[in-house]
Amino acid sequence: MKFFQSPETTREEILAAAYRALCTHGYADLTMERIGAKFDKSVSLVYHHYDGKDDLLLECLEFMLEEYRAETESGPPEDPRQAIEEFCDQLLLSDAPPEAQQFVHALIELRGQAPHNDAYRDYFTRSDRVFQARIERIIETGIEAGVFQDVDPERTAKMIQTIFLGGLFQYATANHDEWLPAFRDELQAYLERDLYTDG
Amino acid sequence: MKFFQSPETTREEILAAAYRALCTHGYADLTMERIGAKFDKSVSLVYHHYDGKDDLLLECLEFMLEEYRAETESGPPEDPRQAIEEFCDQLLLSDAPPEAQQFVHALIELRGQAPHNDAYRDYFTRSDRVFQARIERIIETGIEAGVFQDVDPERTAKMIQTIFLGGLFQYATANHDEWLPAFRDELQAYLERDLYTDG
Repeated sequence: MKFFQSPETTREEILAAAYRALCTHGYADLTMERIGAKFDKSVSLVYHHYDGKDDLLLECLEFMLEEYRAETESGPPEDPRQAIEEFCDQLLLSDAPPEAQQFVHALIELRGQAPHNDAYRDYFTRSDRVFQARIERIIETGIEAGVFQDVDPERTAKMIQTIFLGGLFQYATANHDEWLPAFRDELQAYLERDLYTDG
Repeated sequence: MKFFQSPETTREEILAAAYRALCTHGYADLTMERIGAKFDKSVSLVYHHYDGKDDLLLECLEFMLEEYRAETESGPPEDPRQAIEEFCDQLLLSDAPPEAQQFVHALIELRGQAPHNDAYRDYFTRSDRVFQARIERIIETGIEAGVFQDVDPERTAKMIQTIFLGGLFQYATANHDEWLPAFRDELQAYLERDLYTDG
């Protein structure tokens, strides 16, 4: 999923600048000045609309979540098995473009603020709900189509989401090349054993 | 597992003070002054031995990891099924004492530094290896005893560790009461279905 490819308003241009600056610098080293440097218009517009980097980043995250929601809520997945594998494939980041890898690192840093920051905590609680709903819908569609086992969609979706998040967290916070291959194989085996009907 | 119950040297007293201050204030609000305030002797001793809070916290984490390693490497688990459930039960933190909950929050904040901080990244890579080895040993013992299925210990251990880490991450960064019950049930079902022989 690509974000901010063609911003249409000044607000979207500011959010796009925040996204690019976040990918470039990470959260800890991000400043409003550095966001401003990625913005083509007057930097004062950035200061005028946002109280600080957290205020701006939270709106940026919210915007991306709405894009994701709009794209994934447009209808049930055509191929549930492909849809669940695409969701999990977001983990296989070795081949991902550098910006996507940088974004995952920054996202984990941002989520690392949540233990002491209620605004980030509320945001990630909401985003978890959106992903949970997406996975549940894929699973329900797969059960109806007979390609998934008759599992409990809520519980299975929560497990997949937890595996996904644990994988992202390790990827961003440990030297990941040593565990990724074994994990990738095991995740595929888990889906074939515990979810697919023809596993 | 309890840490720093009876520090025996000045170094251990300093590390114990850092641990208590970390639990009380979290990482973002932690300062050397606040660590010093938890230390019974002269604060200058703290400044003398450590360059800053990260230096001190990393040694504190290393000390705890060594304690864990020493305790768990003393021999194979007597009851592999109980051992794996005890490992996973560390997730069921609703009943944990407040200090343990605060420590998990702080630990997630610290791990959230790893994307931009090599020292934390190296530490968490090492700690993942220790937990991985522990779970692998439990699984190998369980297979030998016939109470676990003939799984690949490395791959299954990595999956359990990823689930565990994803659970901790959600617990510390989202409002966890809404997902914990469903997740607890699913984790138990996963162990019974995919690991135990009499599931």
